[in-house]
Amino acid sequence: MAFQQAPVILSHASIVGPKEGEGPLGDVFDKVLEDMYYEESTWEKAEQKIFLETMKLALAKAQLTTDDMDYLLAGDLTNQIITANFTARSLAIPFIGLYGACSTMYESLALGSMLIDGGYAKYVLVGASSHFATAERQFRFPTEQGVQRAMSAQRTVTGAGAIVLGAQGEGPRITHATIGKVIDFGQGDASDMGSAMAPAAADTFLRHLQDRKISPDFYSIIATGDLGKYGRQLVVKLCEQQEVFLTQSYTDCGILIFDESQDTHAGGSGCGCSAVVTCGHLLREMEQGRLTRILGIGTGALLSPCSSQQGETIPGIAHAVAIEASGGGR
Amino acid sequence: MAFQQAPVILSHASIVGPKEGEGPLGDVFDKVLEDMYYEESTWEKAEQKIFLETMKLALAKAQLTTDDMDYLLAGDLTNQIITANFTARSLAIPFIGLYGACSTMYESLALGSMLIDGGYAKYVLVGASSHFATAERQFRFPTEQGVQRAMSAQRTVTGAGAIVLGAQGEGPRITHATIGKVIDFGQGDASDMGSAMAPAAADTFLRHLQDRKISPDFYSIIATGDLGKYGRQLVVKLCEQQEVFLTQSYTDCGILIFDESQDTHAGGSGCGCSAVVTCGHLLREMEQGRLTRILGIGTGALLSPCSSQQGETIPGIAHAVAIEASGGGR
Repeated sequence: MAFQQAPVILSHASIVGPKEGEGPLGDVFDKVLEDMYYEESTWEKAEQKIFLETMKLALAKAQLTTDDMDYLLAGDLTNQIITANFTARSLAIPFIGLYGACSTMYESLALGSMLIDGGYAKYVLVGASSHFATAERQFRFPTEQGVQRAMSAQRTVTGAGAIVLGAQGEGPRITHATIGKVIDFGQGDASDMGSAMAPAAADTFLRHLQDRKISPDFYSIIATGDLGKYGRQLVVKLCEQQEVFLTQSYTDCGILIFDESQDTHAGGSGCGCSAVVTCGHLLREMEQGRLTRILGIGTGALLSPCSSQQGETIPGIAHAVAIEASGGGR
Repeated sequence: MAFQQAPVILSHASIVGPKEGEGPLGDVFDKVLEDMYYEESTWEKAEQKIFLETMKLALAKAQLTTDDMDYLLAGDLTNQIITANFTARSLAIPFIGLYGACSTMYESLALGSMLIDGGYAKYVLVGASSHFATAERQFRFPTEQGVQRAMSAQRTVTGAGAIVLGAQGEGPRITHATIGKVIDFGQGDASDMGSAMAPAAADTFLRHLQDRKISPDFYSIIATGDLGKYGRQLVVKLCEQQEVFLTQSYTDCGILIFDESQDTHAGGSGCGCSAVVTCGHLLREMEQGRLTRILGIGTGALLSPCSSQQGETIPGIAHAVAIEASGGGR
């Protein structure tokens, strides 16, 4: 999709958990929580509070209210996306619920841009959320059990990101989006989801380059969502096979958010990973003139505990969104 | 949203389970399964097979292939929408995963229409699915336990519906869509989801009438998704309070699909309910000249077992889509 109106990112907000606050990007987020409960009685309620506050913060930064918003597009990892649903209940904006696993931030950005560029909306609020503890006990093991995690496993980011998109105004612009296909190379190890998602990321990325007739160096930075270090390596390899050579300008939000010393193994993951790194880090870097063209590629592993128990492999998906600084140029 | 291009419904398909085949609409569906497993080893795999075959059938009826489709929009009720994800894996069409609980068919129709009307796609495949047994064990009790169900409870429809939307061609046209807000009147009884969703249905319906400046008799039929008999009564009452009077032209897909003699209590529910009644019944009635203007209102209960266990009430959502026969008139 090439957006002729190029929707504007009017504001962005991010709130993260304590572990993310201790990471290399710790000082770029709007708020770092002191604990995982955030004064709530359950992790699920904490996640809903984080998401709602992030949404409200994005609105406040844009000096807009819920009444100004034509649509809310959001999703998360909890069963039946209750985090997004209950956040939408509080905001009372016409709501489009999404599920793209950890690709949801980019799915919401792509669809939100279409709503504006297509003339259906003036303002759209988009976002995604995840929480380490709600994800851990839902997808893996009871948190209290303290199961040792594989070195290829990633840590679900506690955090939410939200963006206000507008038809007009000042800010970075969304110029293109590429919606991904579901790709499955037959990887079935739920402790290595980066490798499971990498083929989808490579497929979407290569299609995006082909559609736009550009090479990777068109972008100042290319950031996949949450492939972690093994997934990133695999993307580089898959692209090499197609004679597309990625350099250090290709990074991954799951690698950026944690430091190896934090015992987070292959990196960060979860809907919140690409959401907070995009809102807290990438867009700030662009606003400060250090990046002029970003290609963000949200990546999602489309499994459930049930599908894994029934012997299924892990299909992946990836959605790419191109963002340009208002001034243009590289 | 008013669609200037009015996307065309090029084809529609529906496959249902045995119980739905025995109901009053039994002979309008493309296929009625003999059993709930459909030759698969699990109910989840059966649901995926049903959804995939329904999608393929819709494509075949439109004399189009997966390569012709620009986007696939789909969702279902299973955790992490694995039914839709695995169906998307088989189809290999760029995929936008949705979660709107039982409103998903109408969420996909609204967004799919926007993709075409906005000029982003020539053909879009949309659909939704549910399965009695996958839903029962996920949301309620182990199926084998045979728990007695409340008289206010509804039965999840086993079935899937799929529609091919096109920018041009012959067929009913989608003229308008109204995206719903999440509404919660504080109902917390998961055995009476029709009543929990009714306020959202009434809200979306009233906003739709207001936006279009029309009265209910503009439509030959108004059909909510899966409110069942108690939910329908509540919608009539809530509309009355706003001095909007609904007549017999207002029905509910959950009421239409089963007969009271089938021991299905308040009626049918699930993503599949509005999907198969719309594809199998409403659109056929339109094509045979008996309906000229349909307002379908997909309704969803945005709970999860986890949110209910944590003491939450049940928020509802409803998305409305207006469909007109190609000839026009009432």
